[in-house]
Formats: sequence, structure tokens, C-alpha cells
Amino acid sequence: MGRCTLGTATYLSARLSQLFRLPRSLHTMVGQKQKVAIIGSGNWGSAIAKIAGYNTARHTDIFEPIVNMYVYEEVINGKKLTEIINEDHVNTKYLPHARLPDNVVAVPNAEDAACGATLLVFVLPHQFIQNVCKSLKNSLAPDAHAISMIKGVDVSSHNISIYADVIEKALNIPCAALSGANIANEVAAGLFSETTVGYRPHQRHLAEYYVKLFDTPKFRVGMIEDVAGVSLCGALKNIVAIGAGLVDGLGWGGNAKAAIMRIGLMEMRRFSLEFFENVRPETFTETSAGVADLITTCYGGRNRKCAEAFVKTRKPFHVLEAELLNGQKLQGTETAKDVYEFLKARGKVDEYPLLRTIYEICFEGVDPSQLTERL
Amino acid sequence: MGRCTLGTATYLSARLSQLFRLPRSLHTMVGQKQKVAIIGSGNWGSAIAKIAGYNTARHTDIFEPIVNMYVYEEVINGKKLTEIINEDHVNTKYLPHARLPDNVVAVPNAEDAACGATLLVFVLPHQFIQNVCKSLKNSLAPDAHAISMIKGVDVSSHNISIYADVIEKALNIPCAALSGANIANEVAAGLFSETTVGYRPHQRHLAEYYVKLFDTPKFRVGMIEDVAGVSLCGALKNIVAIGAGLVDGLGWGGNAKAAIMRIGLMEMRRFSLEFFENVRPETFTETSAGVADLITTCYGGRNRKCAEAFVKTRKPFHVLEAELLNGQKLQGTETAKDVYEFLKARGKVDEYPLLRTIYEICFEGVDPSQLTERL
Repeated sequence: MGRCTLGTATYLSARLSQLFRLPRSLHTMVGQKQKVAIIGSGNWGSAIAKIAGYNTARHTDIFEPIVNMYVYEEVINGKKLTEIINEDHVNTKYLPHARLPDNVVAVPNAEDAACGATLLVFVLPHQFIQNVCKSLKNSLAPDAHAISMIKGVDVSSHNISIYADVIEKALNIPCAALSGANIANEVAAGLFSETTVGYRPHQRHLAEYYVKLFDTPKFRVGMIEDVAGVSLCGALKNIVAIGAGLVDGLGWGGNAKAAIMRIGLMEMRRFSLEFFENVRPETFTETSAGVADLITTCYGGRNRKCAEAFVKTRKPFHVLEAELLNGQKLQGTETAKDVYEFLKARGKVDEYPLLRTIYEICFEGVDPSQLTERL
Repeated sequence: MGRCTLGTATYLSARLSQLFRLPRSLHTMVGQKQKVAIIGSGNWGSAIAKIAGYNTARHTDIFEPIVNMYVYEEVINGKKLTEIINEDHVNTKYLPHARLPDNVVAVPNAEDAACGATLLVFVLPHQFIQNVCKSLKNSLAPDAHAISMIKGVDVSSHNISIYADVIEKALNIPCAALSGANIANEVAAGLFSETTVGYRPHQRHLAEYYVKLFDTPKFRVGMIEDVAGVSLCGALKNIVAIGAGLVDGLGWGGNAKAAIMRIGLMEMRRFSLEFFENVRPETFTETSAGVADLITTCYGGRNRKCAEAFVKTRKPFHVLEAELLNGQKLQGTETAKDVYEFLKARGKVDEYPLLRTIYEICFEGVDPSQLTERL
């Protein structure tokens, strides 16, 4: 078990249910409640921790009330961020305007945060995933399972993966995905939102835990059997949002912007159906993860904002990212590059004219006014 | 033939092709070109006349170059609007910033405008349709066919019709529909747009005329075999835009607005599939008439604008319409009422909670903050 020791009762009941294949209803009877750990505590991680803390406290039949949240330790005005969160219940750095519930506990070490957790919520920048997963491997409870809220795709030339698959492989536990029209500050402020949980075939029972953990009257959680589709929506929409921002910068108006969004949605769906298995087309056109998140992102997101500035200033994207995003990362351009390199390796660039053209405008000096020439 | 007399050559070739069922390619050989009449000349009618004039002039193998446009006669600064259009080639009242091609000819009488026309484009307010159709009945060429750009639905208690069906029935000619993310001023300015032609089963050959008549490098025309779906998208999206405007007025942010749009799109589709035949679900989620027009309208349209003002001022919609729309009509509230009355007559109100709640907020004093309570 590494340096993490599971509570004996939890461990025993979990082992019992594994050994004797007890029906799920009996899990609860022998005392196994879901123990939640949030791995990550940025803007979105903190917002989702607020919801998770609220729901573990009201569904005590299903969840242990304490929610551990892994917080990368930083010192803010002479005080540790974990101490600030545990004493004042506010993540002053990443979500300063929302109060976290008292049962959300900041833990400065990922392994400690995840110790004995059965339900892991991954919500941290993708470049840290592999290392964090390595450190967690020995902390997991039997029957542990995960949900990923990480945007982006992992590309190495001919291969492309979603991060739910990366986590599933690294930890050898099932991993679902959550994505939706979810600007973090709005969710944290309790404004009405929807989101979508994508689950694996035959794992609807795990998805039901995620719905219980996140659904509130103002944050409605839908489900679809499609981890890849939900994940790819979250990643690819950022490329389309770059296109929408280019239209804004060019002053081409609402018709052109809607056209780019429609064409982008169709290319997102085609790409996902072509290169991933078990993707459901309706994830893109019907769920919050699909069409709704695309809308929010193309009107309100940071990718749109930087792309508009790109047309108006002609500064490179890495300069605009530094100037405009206050330390946040510009995911759309990176994903555009990843997807382009993957398509090139597969000889399929020409079949995705919008994704191609956005890449070429961002990285190869093509003039933004060429955006629609090849569509 | 009433007081309209068809050109003898056109009439003869049309009759020949009817009598001997000549294949379509021969129509052209014996001299029958499509003669286009635009019935209506408001903001959108004038924008589409500009495109039609451009295309009849460049596709002279298919079209007679002259495009008649029925203009309801008004006197502007002491001069007749038809004279202004025919001398200065600008519709100074409804589309002042765009030049119409010289081959678009304003005609102050609908029957004269449509005389001998084979291809009629209906783009006038729906309350005038029945009377105009009556006046046209004797002016039509053999083989005449029509396309409707009219938004809204015709409701009488238990029955609901799209205007393409109303025209088809009144004139006894086939009627297609065109709708899309098409803010008229942007189309007239030559900014990039897409649109969708919905055609009847077995009438793809007619749809190809409409594509030839309207498609340009900056105005891309798609086709789908679904007249009802395309028409209903154009009508029902205005109700959803009222919902989007309510969210804007409430200050609920981008997530909530995207959620209302997604839920609205799903109710639009469900409604259409339930009450109309041959509707294709993908019309709503994939075409410019569907998702793209919904986006444009929910961000840029007059319904959104008035609904935002409704929340902020609590003035009734008819007052806001008069104050804010400069003589244009607010279609969303009227359509909301039509659809609600139809649903009520069918006992189906509860199955469309968003459409229902928008109606109740607009007309029955329900507070806008209740918008999401029943969704």
C-alpha cells in the first residue's frame, strides 16, 4: 500500500465485496461508501470541489462526507494556500469569489489526498497527469474508479489518446469523463448550467455515482455512454473557438461566426468517429459537452479572445497568451497543432479543411482572411 | 390567364415539355429558362434579390436574366419606392446600404411581378400570403414552382401548418423552403454565410434551381430533403431566442444561455418530429437552418434584444417592439403564443417545458427567474 494506509473497515468491506461479488446494494450495507478525492485545485477544480463537497454532505448514504482536494502548495501573501483553504475555505488564488464547503479539505500531496479514495476526480493540467498517476498508484482503494475533466488530446505522431484513457491505463482503473458548457466562475456562483458525464460501456453504475456527486438543481448532469466523444468535445471545441475568434477579429459578423461553429462541430464529430471507437454522433450535437460547450466557448472563452486579438494585432499567440490570460494556458492553439500533426501523420489533413486552415493561420502565416476559402 | 399574358415562346416550350414529358435537359434545349420573381422586398427580400440578380446574370443558360421583385408601393421623400429602386438600384427604405443589380426590376403589383414566372420566391410578412396568392393564381406559368423564406407557423387550434404548405395549397404548385443563419444586412454586405434549402421528396431537381439561384462563394447553399424541418427551424428558433434574451436580461451568463439554447434545440426537434411528417432530425442539429441560425439569432437577433429589455424594464413586449424595433415585428412572442395554443389544444403543453415557460413568462406574468425551474 505504499505509505498510504487504508482505513481497515473500508478496506475489509471492499475486499469482501470483491471476493464474494456481492450485489452493489450490499456494498452500502457492509459500510462501503464512496470516498472522494479531487486531484487538482485550479479555477475549475475548485469550482467542482465546491459542488462535490455540497453533494457528499447531502448524500451521506453514498459518500463519505470529507472530500480531499490535492492542492499544489504555493505561498500566497506569506501563507500556504492549503492553510488558507482549510482555515478560510476560499481558494484565494484560483477561485477567490466562492466559499468552499467546510468538508473540502486541502491536502498538499497528491498521494495523501487520494489515500483510500474510491472515486478520483482528475482536474489538473494535462502535463502533470503521468507523474501524478505514478505517485497515486499505491494509494488507491480496491474498487477505485476515476473521472477526468481534463481537456486536450495526447498525440504522438500516428497515435492520439484522450486523457481518460491515459489515466485508465496508468492506474488500471476505469475512467469516465465530464465536460460541458461550464465556465468555472459561473458554476461556482451558482448560476444555471448543464454538464455531461461520458461513461464506458457496462459502467452506467459508476456514472450514477458521478451524477450523485455533481448534480444539483443549478448544475444539471446528463449521462451518455461515450467517454471518447465527451472528452473530444472538450478538446476540439477549443480549436473551433480559435476560428470563431478569427471571425470576430475580421469583423465578419454573426452569420459567418455561426457558419464556422457549424462546420467546426461537423469536423469535430467526423474526426472523432473516424479515429476513436464507440463514439456516438449525438454527443456532439445534443449534449452540453457538445453543441452547448461549443457555443459558450466560442462566445466567452479565452481562445476566442486571443484569436480576435491575433487578427487585430498580428502578435504571435504565445505573446497574446502571456499578455491576455494572466497565467492561464491557451489550449486551442496547442490542440490545433496536436490534431494537425496527427492528421498529417495519417495523410488526412485535406479532409478537415477548417481544422487545417485554423492551424495554418495560427502557425504557418496564412492570412486570417483566408479562413473560409477552402470550406 | 387573367390580365397577365405569358410570352408565347416560354408558354409553348413549357406546354410541350408537360405534354410530352421531355427529360429535363431538353427543357433548356427547347428554350425554357427559369423566370424568377421575388414576391416581397423588405430587408431580407431585398438582400436575397441582390443575390438572385447576380446569379441569374451569371447563369444565363438556366435563368432569364431579369428578376422581377414585387415591391409594396410607398412614397419616400416624395418619390415612389419602385422608381427609386429602378433608377438608383437601392431599396432606400429596407436595405439602404446595398446596391441591387440592374437586372432586378421593382414592380408595384404582385400579379405583374409574377406574370409568367416559373420560379417564385416568397419573402413577405405571413399575414399577406393568402391575399397575394389569390392574386397570383392566374399569373403563373405552367411548371411554376416556389420557395418560401417566410418564418412562423400558421396555427388554428388543433392544426398547425408551415407557410410552404400554405403556398403549395393556395397555388397548387410545389413549394420548397429556405432558411439559415442569415442576418440580411450581413448577407447583403457580402460577408460569409451559409443557408439551407429544404425540398420535397422527389423534387431534388427543383432544389437544384434554388441552389443555382442563390449559391455564391460567400453565400453557401446546402440542401436537405426536409421542407417542414427547415421551415420549423426558422419559426421555432425565435421562441428559443426569447429564452436566450431572458437569460441575458437576468445576467445568468454564458453557461445558462448555452443550456437554454441546447434544450431549446431539442424541444424544437421533438416538436417537429411529433407533429409533422417526413421531418429529418439532423436538419436541426447539423444544418445552417438549424443549429447555426439558432446561434446567430440567440446572440444577434431582435427577439433576444426585446427579451433582455423585458427583464430589465418589465414593459410588455408590444411596447418594447414599438420602442426598439423601428417598425419591424417581434416574431418570437407571436410564435410562442401560436405554439402554446396548439400544444394546449393537443394536451401536450407539459412535454415542452421550455416552450411552455417562455410563453408563460411572456404572456402570463410568470417571473423570468422561473425560466429553469421546470427544465
